[in-house]
Amino acid sequence: MPRPPRTSIATVSLSGPLTEKLTAIATAGFDGVEIFENDLLAGPHSPEEIRLRCADLGLSIDLYQPFRDFEAVPADLLARNLRRAERKFAVMERLGADLLLVCSSVSPAAVDDDALAAEQLRLLADRAEAHGIRIAYEALAWGRHVSTYDHAWRIVEQADHPALGTCLDSFHILSRGSDPQGIESIPGEKIFFLQLADAPLMAMDVLQWSRHYRCFPGQGGFDVAGPLRHAVRAGYTGPLSLEVFNDVFRQSEAASTAVDALRSLLLLQEKAGLTAPPAPAVPTGIAFAELHAADTDPLRGMLGALGFTRTGRHTSKPVELWQQGEARILLNTAGTAGDRRAGPALTAIGLETPDPDRAVARAEAMLAPVVPRRRAPKDAPLDAVAAPDGTEVFFCRTDALDRPGWTTDFTAVPGPGPGVGPVGIEPVGIERIDHIALIQPWHQFDEAALFHQGVLGLDADDSLDLADPYGLRRSKALATADGAVRIALNIAPAPDAEGPRVQHIALATGDVVAAARRIRERGGALLPIPANYYDDLDARHELDPGVLAALAELGVLYDRDEAGEFLHCYTVTVGRVFFELVQRIGGYQGYGALNAGVRLAAQHTHRHGVPAHGPRG
Amino acid sequence: MPRPPRTSIATVSLSGPLTEKLTAIATAGFDGVEIFENDLLAGPHSPEEIRLRCADLGLSIDLYQPFRDFEAVPADLLARNLRRAERKFAVMERLGADLLLVCSSVSPAAVDDDALAAEQLRLLADRAEAHGIRIAYEALAWGRHVSTYDHAWRIVEQADHPALGTCLDSFHILSRGSDPQGIESIPGEKIFFLQLADAPLMAMDVLQWSRHYRCFPGQGGFDVAGPLRHAVRAGYTGPLSLEVFNDVFRQSEAASTAVDALRSLLLLQEKAGLTAPPAPAVPTGIAFAELHAADTDPLRGMLGALGFTRTGRHTSKPVELWQQGEARILLNTAGTAGDRRAGPALTAIGLETPDPDRAVARAEAMLAPVVPRRRAPKDAPLDAVAAPDGTEVFFCRTDALDRPGWTTDFTAVPGPGPGVGPVGIEPVGIERIDHIALIQPWHQFDEAALFHQGVLGLDADDSLDLADPYGLRRSKALATADGAVRIALNIAPAPDAEGPRVQHIALATGDVVAAARRIRERGGALLPIPANYYDDLDARHELDPGVLAALAELGVLYDRDEAGEFLHCYTVTVGRVFFELVQRIGGYQGYGALNAGVRLAAQHTHRHGVPAHGPRG
Repeated sequence: MPRPPRTSIATVSLSGPLTEKLTAIATAGFDGVEIFENDLLAGPHSPEEIRLRCADLGLSIDLYQPFRDFEAVPADLLARNLRRAERKFAVMERLGADLLLVCSSVSPAAVDDDALAAEQLRLLADRAEAHGIRIAYEALAWGRHVSTYDHAWRIVEQADHPALGTCLDSFHILSRGSDPQGIESIPGEKIFFLQLADAPLMAMDVLQWSRHYRCFPGQGGFDVAGPLRHAVRAGYTGPLSLEVFNDVFRQSEAASTAVDALRSLLLLQEKAGLTAPPAPAVPTGIAFAELHAADTDPLRGMLGALGFTRTGRHTSKPVELWQQGEARILLNTAGTAGDRRAGPALTAIGLETPDPDRAVARAEAMLAPVVPRRRAPKDAPLDAVAAPDGTEVFFCRTDALDRPGWTTDFTAVPGPGPGVGPVGIEPVGIERIDHIALIQPWHQFDEAALFHQGVLGLDADDSLDLADPYGLRRSKALATADGAVRIALNIAPAPDAEGPRVQHIALATGDVVAAARRIRERGGALLPIPANYYDDLDARHELDPGVLAALAELGVLYDRDEAGEFLHCYTVTVGRVFFELVQRIGGYQGYGALNAGVRLAAQHTHRHGVPAHGPRG
Repeated sequence: MPRPPRTSIATVSLSGPLTEKLTAIATAGFDGVEIFENDLLAGPHSPEEIRLRCADLGLSIDLYQPFRDFEAVPADLLARNLRRAERKFAVMERLGADLLLVCSSVSPAAVDDDALAAEQLRLLADRAEAHGIRIAYEALAWGRHVSTYDHAWRIVEQADHPALGTCLDSFHILSRGSDPQGIESIPGEKIFFLQLADAPLMAMDVLQWSRHYRCFPGQGGFDVAGPLRHAVRAGYTGPLSLEVFNDVFRQSEAASTAVDALRSLLLLQEKAGLTAPPAPAVPTGIAFAELHAADTDPLRGMLGALGFTRTGRHTSKPVELWQQGEARILLNTAGTAGDRRAGPALTAIGLETPDPDRAVARAEAMLAPVVPRRRAPKDAPLDAVAAPDGTEVFFCRTDALDRPGWTTDFTAVPGPGPGVGPVGIEPVGIERIDHIALIQPWHQFDEAALFHQGVLGLDADDSLDLADPYGLRRSKALATADGAVRIALNIAPAPDAEGPRVQHIALATGDVVAAARRIRERGGALLPIPANYYDDLDARHELDPGVLAALAELGVLYDRDEAGEFLHCYTVTVGRVFFELVQRIGGYQGYGALNAGVRLAAQHTHRHGVPAHGPRG
């Protein structure tokens, strides 16, 4: 395989002052940058200083941009535009940049005359060449007369100047619905630059779409690999550069956005067949979920009520293993996990993986931080990486024959231990962990989704909006094709909203009504669901009255689709975690999203208490 | 004038649990509510309890909604849909609601057959009538076969049942581009309900537009008064109800959103000619700006450098008057103004008003809280109301002949007082306050804009996005037609962003370069502007080299449009406030928005210090 292309990113894609952006870009591992003019203008550093800074950071300056509204204008305006260009060439010489992006004009002063545009661009290229500078002409999707890449190329071809080429941008190409196949008819050496950006598929004004909603490749709905593949086939050998205008990234920390950006570019190169990193080791199940708690008593009580038994204690760490069927929960009292006062939290998940070494190699190749292992010499090797939200993801082979499994680090312990209540709790029929729901910071939602897809090898469903009493919450489920591993990502409420960020573990059972009844009999606290919900359920689904009564009595929610049925109920929240019991009937693959609003409101009610019934006073 | 229509609002327009919404709606002063079904389903209160709660709060239940996907279906599905409807009628009887909203179907099961739709809706109306319930059929803009209001009306007309009428919704009508004039051909008694919502004009998918971006009338781009006027002319006498799905309102405090909502409805009624509240007393100038500070020394130093002189001291309060030309600044050390540790803040503005009494009557009619007056018996009457962001707005007549002016409360004091430096500072040519820039919490931006328009009588410009290093900031200018009063609203950065919310006072001068030079000579700290900005200014505007050098030397920014030129510079920030000096040449009416990104970045640099020049190490 040939050497992978160089990677680059436009400074406009990140937040902060220019020097902060450059540091983040270099630290993430990019080879070069596009300097966005406004970032230079607004900063206190001279072009020479920025040039030295880039050199020191090992970054090449691949492009200076944008130069707007140049071509196809009357003679007097042309003279003024050439003067303006000369001033920019001077800045570029000080900066050490040798490629200038010229966007197709949006000015009312421009006329619809390709020959005139070509003639004036040739003139510009001539002036540029004298400074050792080249011009990359790009069609903006909202350009006044030139808005498609093939049109921009025809003008470049007509101008026929060695210092004039075209710049391709996947957003402008795909948002216009152009066929990227035509890229292959452009000589590779005339493609001076390639910009890559994705975007969610939206029916909206293309300028607003571009300015606010672009995202990194793989986070939107475009096939960004298409234009990339065609450009490489055409012979393009320049850098692959991300140029993403996004309202969220403008507000996020530059360092983590830069890593997210480079990861998306690495995944894109793989998808386009330009590189061959270690393939994902698609997980085959959820081995365990790990909860951290300073005080484990509330969790012990909850796990006991749910029918879990403490089966083991780690030989070298303060960790207990609780189990029921194939569902395993680790209780960890070591160290700290964020705000201990906020109570127990979900800190790690274990994924059953056919090849843990490959899984780690994949994760490392995709820039996931490998979590330092603190283990005793005799502990089984257990490899973990950190997801963007900080959750540790361990790669396990629980029943491996060729190497010691992680469960061998646990010695059997008798009885449920303190805090559970009566010893000898019977299981309630929980079989395994159905899914894990992780709350994501609002500015890392897309990054997390791409991580779980690209690094872990899960497939993504579409995003949904769930209605919380205090705002909509975006949600996206990721799963393996067979449903053995399911992870639901939910966006956290607004930063100033009340309440901790609560995550949950969903446990699979073959009979949620029976399980819920047994849990309640032994005093396990299930989340009460309003009676009104069951009136509506009756109106919508015509359930058997006996079944409906049982659901209402126990607070079991219900959903149905073409493929099957879904019954689920929730425990109350302990600290920052709660449990769900789910029963899938037939081929139902969802998560009961229709019921999420009711559940979120019921949690709010439970947290704050039911307001006094009846009228006031 | 006839009695004004009753006011109502859908519970979906506000955040929080249902009982919290109802309390906010009643407290704001609405007459009734539409109960959005999900709000009832998700809450712990029975329909009977909600009925009693509404009665206790004095709210009528005007509508229960929505009932979806009913009409024009095959016989077996019709039977199921009628059963579903009966269940809802039962809930409505318990709730005491007698009007059900039926939305035009979006189901693939519906057929395109108006006669069938009419027949089935007649059947539904018959069943409803038996419960004393009426049906309001509404065309969703994205309905499968019925998506326009006139089409929905034709079906209602064809069904011809006394318990069946139509519901009109300004969003659905205007987003489809329908002509609302046709409303007048519907008999008033067949318009069972009228929903009012605005939205910003956006080219996007109408369902997404409706679900996320609706706003209160006057906050978007639709002429919502049009459908209202036509409905009243048709003979509609029911409530005017707001139904606004909005991502921001879902997260905001219900109490303040409800007030914002009712104010928009009162303004809309006035605009449609249904009511005649006191007209706005359009202000004729900015009388003063008031700054609160625990320690006034830094402000005294700044004001002295800017050429202000302390001219008076309030006879009964710890307030000083500083003046230069017609620009007046009050320095107040009384009480607290938010976080005193964050330093001086802008807390009040005084508007010159031809008729202060009418201005207050207008503000009260439009639900602006009147600020309690704490004044000594001999103080001049000075009326103030609170803007949505808490800024107090005083209505003044500085040079009134028929009543004591507010300046009579101040006694002349000699000299500039402590902290100013050399006594006898000369003015620098400041003539008056050009504008005040107020930072708004992100969820109150539209409310504030409507307040300044509807209550104060200013005209609004379009919104702009300004690029801060850490995010885009929405901005909107409001002004009187003659420009005598200008207020710029800027949205605050994200809630978790760094830095205090900084506001500013812009001072008008006839020669900003001379003023800046004199300020600098006496040690006043002006905000440094990067040299790169002037390179770009030269490229863009071909200024005279001497002028350009003077601008660069003093940090004066420049803008030009068809109407004229604009020169402006900034002081450094003191606590939560800074000053701008502006010079308008010709008919320039803007605020130098193009330069805002440079100014915001320069403020960031000044706050955090310039990173070390040159490469690291």
